[in-house]
Amino acid sequence: MAEQRWTLNRRRLLTGGAAVAAGAALTQCATAGSSTPTGFGSATEPFHGRHQAGIATPPQAHALFVALDMAPSADRSPRDTLIAMLRLWSSDAARLTAGQPALADTEPELAQHPSRLTVTVGIGPHVFDRIGLAHRRPDSVSELPAFSTDRLDRRWCGGDILLQICADDRVAVAHAARVLLKNVRTLTVQRWRQDGFRTARGADKSGATMRNLMGQVDGTANPREDAELDRYVWDDGSQQPWFAGGTVLVIRRIRSELDTWDELDRTSKELTLGRRLDTGAPLTGEGEFDEPDLAATENGIPVIPPNSHVALARRQSDDERFLRRGYNYDDPPTVGTTDAGLIFAAYQRDPARQFVPVQRRLAEADAMNPWITTIGSAVFAMLPGVPEGGYLGQNLLG
Amino acid sequence: MAEQRWTLNRRRLLTGGAAVAAGAALTQCATAGSSTPTGFGSATEPFHGRHQAGIATPPQAHALFVALDMAPSADRSPRDTLIAMLRLWSSDAARLTAGQPALADTEPELAQHPSRLTVTVGIGPHVFDRIGLAHRRPDSVSELPAFSTDRLDRRWCGGDILLQICADDRVAVAHAARVLLKNVRTLTVQRWRQDGFRTARGADKSGATMRNLMGQVDGTANPREDAELDRYVWDDGSQQPWFAGGTVLVIRRIRSELDTWDELDRTSKELTLGRRLDTGAPLTGEGEFDEPDLAATENGIPVIPPNSHVALARRQSDDERFLRRGYNYDDPPTVGTTDAGLIFAAYQRDPARQFVPVQRRLAEADAMNPWITTIGSAVFAMLPGVPEGGYLGQNLLG
Repeated sequence: MAEQRWTLNRRRLLTGGAAVAAGAALTQCATAGSSTPTGFGSATEPFHGRHQAGIATPPQAHALFVALDMAPSADRSPRDTLIAMLRLWSSDAARLTAGQPALADTEPELAQHPSRLTVTVGIGPHVFDRIGLAHRRPDSVSELPAFSTDRLDRRWCGGDILLQICADDRVAVAHAARVLLKNVRTLTVQRWRQDGFRTARGADKSGATMRNLMGQVDGTANPREDAELDRYVWDDGSQQPWFAGGTVLVIRRIRSELDTWDELDRTSKELTLGRRLDTGAPLTGEGEFDEPDLAATENGIPVIPPNSHVALARRQSDDERFLRRGYNYDDPPTVGTTDAGLIFAAYQRDPARQFVPVQRRLAEADAMNPWITTIGSAVFAMLPGVPEGGYLGQNLLG
Repeated sequence: MAEQRWTLNRRRLLTGGAAVAAGAALTQCATAGSSTPTGFGSATEPFHGRHQAGIATPPQAHALFVALDMAPSADRSPRDTLIAMLRLWSSDAARLTAGQPALADTEPELAQHPSRLTVTVGIGPHVFDRIGLAHRRPDSVSELPAFSTDRLDRRWCGGDILLQICADDRVAVAHAARVLLKNVRTLTVQRWRQDGFRTARGADKSGATMRNLMGQVDGTANPREDAELDRYVWDDGSQQPWFAGGTVLVIRRIRSELDTWDELDRTSKELTLGRRLDTGAPLTGEGEFDEPDLAATENGIPVIPPNSHVALARRQSDDERFLRRGYNYDDPPTVGTTDAGLIFAAYQRDPARQFVPVQRRLAEADAMNPWITTIGSAVFAMLPGVPEGGYLGQNLLG
């Protein structure tokens, strides 16, 4: 059969027409992966486990966030559509993250360098209604309240399903996105797509916290230890047993108003932030991880202004911490010089007790507000991890 | 003075208004760069030299190509505008590529990890008329003829000035783009902007030729040795002495029609290309760099089909070679699943004798044509290199 097709196609080419071989089976290439990668391209992150990878995983250099809506179907219930997608993605992602081509991968060579590829999936708050499982929606998975500083553009908001793809090589991200999206293209409509980056892997081995494009270190106060992650990030299943090991993502697109930010002198920027720009240290300290001393004064004036970003963002109860894993964006501007900012991604057990109170304070008074504008926002239940042989969301849907 | 501003601004913050410090001088931060980068972030490419960097430079992982038009000005001639831009960029680029903040760099920390940053500048064919130097336009710097397969979209075509920024870290690209573009924002209008990537630095240390998102190795036949670069890439100044050491860039945006390409079986793809997908070897050879044997037959049928891509792209005279330094793109689709392809960038002495005859053959008969669509096209005179103390284009404009 393969012989026959070879001859057929060669004849077609020789006669001048390079037509699609109609009905030709999509075949997996068994020989792909035979070369030996010698760089970090061969590094992998485990797909199976109690939690999905791509959350507590040390952030890769590149991230693509794609929000999809389930396409209406006459033949299939939304619940069956979701099950079909999640089964397919679980199978594809297990292979791709291990550096193996997906089943029927048409560019198997592009799967050879996973570069710590992770595939992480979430579902939006409204999906539980649509699949007839409203009673299984965790209370923590709810739309955010409106904040006074929001300037939301519908094209960056919401979504039924979030597909988050991260890797240290943008090629690995592109290939995984292609495979995962085309395999569900009849089931879904793409709603929005955001492409982000951090410092390249290997560029800075100092372990420094990432900087955003306004020049600030970003993510200093993150929980890092396992016990902290259990406390602040991973759901324990006490309200919805199926959700144990999952987490809730708040993703916001925050545009930086660089043209006006750049008009501020350095001292004003540091007073706005409450931190030094060079080291990231609070204005009362020497090192990035020093605790800000909000009570410290100099000649009777607080050293850290009370409406500086650090003063307001800082937790005021022990609940108000979450895992930030944001990415910079730098897109072609439609007007002006630059369209850049931060894809803010915060993972937490319950936004109502963690993100929302912090964001309320910031919306009300943050000295940064004139230079940052939230233009997109969404919440997703990031599914618990998958055991070998299982599929994403199985405890909810199975 | 610094003390005074500190107090003034702190007061402003304390009283609740974080207003822009009007008229505050943009000051360079002398302390930036004081930390010691330990990864490849500190690697640099020389800015000064006989040729601009970013052409024969081993390709970095990321590239941003921005085409600008000169804004009309009542106060200044186009020639003076161009001189002002090129002086500014020469100064900024010399600093940024060395890992130093630009003058008045408002995010100096982002300059610390140049990661082999290069800044490469070209001017379009029509600029010579506009600046009153039509007689100094090299004949090689001309618009391309139309090709029958072109489906050009004006928003990806032309431009007065090309700014090409490459680095192994996307953050370094973003920072350089911000500095260079904002410093000329009153002088220019952005025309188009294309963001591209290749395999991440360090992901694959085998030295393999890059793959595009269709899975093919891309760039096998490149000139590599200095003598080849002098023969095929660098202008020798024989027609226009000022252009010695420059080169001509043909940049084309080539969309991949992945949905239909993915319907082809592997054998058909290889016959379309004339190369094996796994190794990149011609169908008559074993290794990527083996010479294709276009005369070889099997049972009387050519092994490499005569209208395969490799058969038609292969040089038919000794002139038809050029330096390809393309980048993949993968953008949010406006319709369908994927908007991906290749930012084809080919550097050469004379497109009329190098790129054009090859592209004519391809447009006429390339078996690849159903799966690739050229939607953007532009030509730029990439300026000769800059000696220390000089500025880009000085031999033309000075």
